[in-house]
Amino acid sequence: MSKRIITVSRQFGSGGRTIAKAVAERLGIAYYDKELIKKVAEKTGFSSEYIEENGEYAPGRSIFSLASSYIGAPRVMGGMSAYDYLWVVQRNAILEIVEKEPCVIVGRCADYILKDRNDVLNVYIHAPMEARAERIVRLYGESEKKPEDRLKEKDSKRAINYKHFTGETWGDARNYDLCLNSEKIGIEKCVEMIIELAKQ
Amino acid sequence: MSKRIITVSRQFGSGGRTIAKAVAERLGIAYYDKELIKKVAEKTGFSSEYIEENGEYAPGRSIFSLASSYIGAPRVMGGMSAYDYLWVVQRNAILEIVEKEPCVIVGRCADYILKDRNDVLNVYIHAPMEARAERIVRLYGESEKKPEDRLKEKDSKRAINYKHFTGETWGDARNYDLCLNSEKIGIEKCVEMIIELAKQ
Repeated sequence: MSKRIITVSRQFGSGGRTIAKAVAERLGIAYYDKELIKKVAEKTGFSSEYIEENGEYAPGRSIFSLASSYIGAPRVMGGMSAYDYLWVVQRNAILEIVEKEPCVIVGRCADYILKDRNDVLNVYIHAPMEARAERIVRLYGESEKKPEDRLKEKDSKRAINYKHFTGETWGDARNYDLCLNSEKIGIEKCVEMIIELAKQ
Repeated sequence: MSKRIITVSRQFGSGGRTIAKAVAERLGIAYYDKELIKKVAEKTGFSSEYIEENGEYAPGRSIFSLASSYIGAPRVMGGMSAYDYLWVVQRNAILEIVEKEPCVIVGRCADYILKDRNDVLNVYIHAPMEARAERIVRLYGESEKKPEDRLKEKDSKRAINYKHFTGETWGDARNYDLCLNSEKIGIEKCVEMIIELAKQ
């Protein structure tokens, strides 16, 4: 396989995780999503919940302060904020993983962190708002907030996080090798196309 | 074929036109690029050169004034600038073409103009700066300007033009069904992937 590392960035509700997982399973390679969070949790002492919440989302100031006081994490590590410290540890974890084994990595700016490697295929999965709203209600159920508002909030946080650490625009096609509209193309076809390119 | 219309937006020097032309030839459907310009030229009285120069590029004020005085085009048509008038005619030409026959259309915001149709596959082709610089020098030769500067200028003009008429960001993956890095994936593979999706 010429592309032994596949990164999958995805809009919330686009089916990107489902696609990433299926690609890893069919290629018989490792899959890092929650697994990456666990790895970072072990190194930092942050709780998995905290990393899941803050590892991809630029937190509002109040949420951030609240979270760091709750878990008792020091606010500054060697001059860094807890948020920036989390980035450094996540980045190192990703660089370590890709040396170890072929894998699929979901989110966490892995596309940017690995952009100079020749053995990486960077994929972005998106879908129209209506399709994503329908999907998150089906998978995660209703909540107090309208699904469209939940999506907009997640999109906005991921975009801010990506900009903060990479200086790039989240969702800009030029940052990826392959971008797919999962609603138009279909989940199964997306999986097949990624596998085909990885094997090329 | 479930997607009878394929729009191809492309970064200058990415090989997008070559890809679009090959897709049309192999599918045996019409190809609109210069052909669209000719159609618009007939309707407007603008010269083909003027349309080619201004149909996709937001002109600087001075270039614009110069061009419109050269060809003697009226500056205002029914309250519209020549630039906006060109857009309206181009838009109508595209809407007319897609009613007539299956086809591949290159550039001219066709993705946006046709975005609400179910029979359209919107594709965006891009490539890293170095690969594009090498390609334009190979295909079009050297010029006074450095190839990187020629590319940056074209990119910037296309982005301004797209923003002006669509309100969207040019190159944002979410505006397309399929985005491909032609350098990483290869021209031939891009052609195959587009054909496969169009036939799906």
